[in-house]
Amino acid sequence: MKIAVLGTGMVGQALAGRLAELGHEVTVGTRDVAATMARTEPDGIGNPPFPAWAATHPTVTLATFAEATANAELIVNATSGNVSIAALTAAGTDNLAGKVLLDMSNPLDYSGGFPPTLFVKDTDSLGEQIQAAFPDLKVVKALNTLTAALMVNPHHLADGGHSVFVAGNDADAKVTVTALLEAFGHTDVIDLGNITSARGTEMYLPLWLRLMGSLNTPFFNLKVVR
Amino acid sequence: MKIAVLGTGMVGQALAGRLAELGHEVTVGTRDVAATMARTEPDGIGNPPFPAWAATHPTVTLATFAEATANAELIVNATSGNVSIAALTAAGTDNLAGKVLLDMSNPLDYSGGFPPTLFVKDTDSLGEQIQAAFPDLKVVKALNTLTAALMVNPHHLADGGHSVFVAGNDADAKVTVTALLEAFGHTDVIDLGNITSARGTEMYLPLWLRLMGSLNTPFFNLKVVR
Repeated sequence: MKIAVLGTGMVGQALAGRLAELGHEVTVGTRDVAATMARTEPDGIGNPPFPAWAATHPTVTLATFAEATANAELIVNATSGNVSIAALTAAGTDNLAGKVLLDMSNPLDYSGGFPPTLFVKDTDSLGEQIQAAFPDLKVVKALNTLTAALMVNPHHLADGGHSVFVAGNDADAKVTVTALLEAFGHTDVIDLGNITSARGTEMYLPLWLRLMGSLNTPFFNLKVVR
Repeated sequence: MKIAVLGTGMVGQALAGRLAELGHEVTVGTRDVAATMARTEPDGIGNPPFPAWAATHPTVTLATFAEATANAELIVNATSGNVSIAALTAAGTDNLAGKVLLDMSNPLDYSGGFPPTLFVKDTDSLGEQIQAAFPDLKVVKALNTLTAALMVNPHHLADGGHSVFVAGNDADAKVTVTALLEAFGHTDVIDLGNITSARGTEMYLPLWLRLMGSLNTPFFNLKVVR
């Protein structure tokens, strides 16, 4: 499948790399290709700059948000929550229409320091805001509840014995995203309902952040025991 | 131990019954004893009225919030979140001072229908509001993340192989509450840190509510796999 991954950070790299490994034709989308390829410093938490990552992933191409999405059959939103709508706007409504968006963004607000708060919650969610801004996009909220390494390689923890969630208004789009998650190795994908259920998974982040602090690692996930 | 359980609903009944079963001297606290004992109808989701429950639990006594807390060594807040501060105010500051409060309340706001929203979140929590209102109380937020039956009998699901959390400012109070949770049968009690971590567990409720809808049962819980 032709897939556009929007975002060049740790999450975008993890998704793009794994999707390419699974045989998909992956284009990473960024705001400014030249600026992205000029980066030489690791990000704030030590991940390599995009050019270093790209050098080891020669089948993955880099393009603008618009170019990346133009021919994509599926789009992955791996941008920071605070710039997600801007990135999709830059992609252009015509390039999004009718396509499935796997939205893994979280509405984290770091303006008050760590731990971040949420810039939308409770009566709305970032997933809903994206769906409302781009009505022709089939938004499926997923993978926003675990660290990037486990999103794409769940079997690295407890043989994959943990849970992930999908939420969205389009049943077929959820089937498509669920199949992708299963291809990554997820064995317990729980359908929470329509896109308003993104409120649930986004509002889990404050607990996730405190668990990371308490366990001193991001390498954990929830199993919904039932 | 002499324990006061504030609240006569499903959660209060579950806690009081289990604590009595474990040999504790339990007094249930209510606003108006006569009114509570005059109830003859099940609650909105079919739980028996308090008098019917009390008839089968003869060692548990009923008293006002103030009477129940006066001689208690430990207090359990099992009231609805929207009346928790009023119930503790009715108990009286003198009856609370220096004591441990196991606070299992959630700030659920049903005024907009189902699923409820939260009347405090993100930059504050009900646990913190209670701690701020009663500075001499040692508030430990716990057990607000699972259904009452599993709070007190975790082994009824997956042999108890799931997780619960404690959050609070007083280390000794967390030790006391953790011991109580372990007496119930919990084997994975995760200390999230100080009372601000109550934001994490209270904000999990929107996901819990959607999981309940999706799984069509409240009989589930999280295991933090790591």
